[in-house]
Amino acid sequence: MSETIVIKLGGAEGVQFEPICKDVAALIEQGKRVVLVHGGSNEANLLGEAVGSPPKFITSPSGYTSRYTNLETMEIFCMALNGKINTFLVQALQKMGINAFGLCGLDGRLIQAKRKGAIKSIENGKIRLIRDDYTGKIDNINTDILNTLLDMNYVPVVAPIAISHESDALNVDADRAAAMIAAALQADQLLLLTAVPGIMKNFPDPSSLIEKVAYVEIENVLNLVEGRMKKKVLGAQEALDGGVGQVIIADGSTLDAPVINAIAGHGTSFTK
Amino acid sequence: MSETIVIKLGGAEGVQFEPICKDVAALIEQGKRVVLVHGGSNEANLLGEAVGSPPKFITSPSGYTSRYTNLETMEIFCMALNGKINTFLVQALQKMGINAFGLCGLDGRLIQAKRKGAIKSIENGKIRLIRDDYTGKIDNINTDILNTLLDMNYVPVVAPIAISHESDALNVDADRAAAMIAAALQADQLLLLTAVPGIMKNFPDPSSLIEKVAYVEIENVLNLVEGRMKKKVLGAQEALDGGVGQVIIADGSTLDAPVINAIAGHGTSFTK
Repeated sequence: MSETIVIKLGGAEGVQFEPICKDVAALIEQGKRVVLVHGGSNEANLLGEAVGSPPKFITSPSGYTSRYTNLETMEIFCMALNGKINTFLVQALQKMGINAFGLCGLDGRLIQAKRKGAIKSIENGKIRLIRDDYTGKIDNINTDILNTLLDMNYVPVVAPIAISHESDALNVDADRAAAMIAAALQADQLLLLTAVPGIMKNFPDPSSLIEKVAYVEIENVLNLVEGRMKKKVLGAQEALDGGVGQVIIADGSTLDAPVINAIAGHGTSFTK
Repeated sequence: MSETIVIKLGGAEGVQFEPICKDVAALIEQGKRVVLVHGGSNEANLLGEAVGSPPKFITSPSGYTSRYTNLETMEIFCMALNGKINTFLVQALQKMGINAFGLCGLDGRLIQAKRKGAIKSIENGKIRLIRDDYTGKIDNINTDILNTLLDMNYVPVVAPIAISHESDALNVDADRAAAMIAAALQADQLLLLTAVPGIMKNFPDPSSLIEKVAYVEIENVLNLVEGRMKKKVLGAQEALDGGVGQVIIADGSTLDAPVINAIAGHGTSFTK
């Protein structure tokens, strides 16, 4: 079977969709099977502010930051991600002759997740329990639908919204969604594109880029990085655990062949 | 092959999603192949107002009213329809155990349309030409993807957004999109659910409901009705022209089995 590549393109500012789409066109031309997963936090923030419902964030006791998603913000999140980013990314790909196909985790129960119970949030040094949050931990990917679409020569474009066991829409982390999809498809490569060149030993000094991370070194790297990069490293670990051949965290903000460069190894590469 | 039913559920206020979804579950139970097409104008209007971009409408010289959709309003339209209505309709169906699958016309080029050139608008009695409108006339339905999804026991839920030959997202009329989909699938029935019991000879007197319309009478009916109902009648005509067995315009606002009642013939039925 031909090579399968899962590409996560950031919701972070700075990630350039057009050069990424151009590279995807080249990969399709080579007969590769490509699945795209996108973020969109920034768009969700902008829309939330425009409709008078600015985003709120939760910091867990272990230091991870995530969006606080009650029913109202879930609606905003769906509008920004499914409605805007996903639709216009599909449009951009179609304009380049790629037969893209947008979907989210609710469609055919593509991404199933377990809704988190009460979650702990650190506020002013105190722990608070939050019970109306619609976020979850992915526990199943419907590979049937992805393989069917790939076999029909469509390029799936996935928004990181999952469905709970009770069939509620859930906000899930896009990097980890991409990792779970890559693992479920037994992908050869998972590319996590972001707005920096990879993991830097002395952030933000690009000359301190870590080019290779062996599986046993992942825990050390987790202690080195912060914020969203932590989730990317966790995603890399989950993907390798699930049987993905290689994970590369690379620069998606460059105008010059971001995907082709990442595949060639520019960035931080994780292998088992 | 088992019976195929295409159901358009309105974007109009008053149309009740939950009883419709309940009936759809019963049809699936009977082994029917069901495709849903939704509107969402009202949600698009509300979102447009919330973000400071209220909707504008165009009246053509022949008296049809349609949304003026420039690039900015197309974004709002996609957020409201793809992002909100489609996602939460899929969620509602999934909660009833129906494996719904949301998509729009861009996905795999499901609904292809020819973008209208400059369109004529009547403003204060004068004709004005509008050139930045993203609306279109549907000229192809990708039945492969719909049949594949139906064969896999998914229920396609379609947002009325098409893709132009230049791959731009286009706003298309939901009733006519449903008609084109029904024709492409050679559906047995097309149900156009709305907030009234059907076509009334003396609107709004429900005792003047026209129960049956023969194909040759459609032109007369077109002269009788106004506004959005004109598009439903045009949709009915197009569907019959395309080989659909029966079209029924029926009440989608009732809480009591709206779909089952429509199939049983409550409403205005069109046959060739």
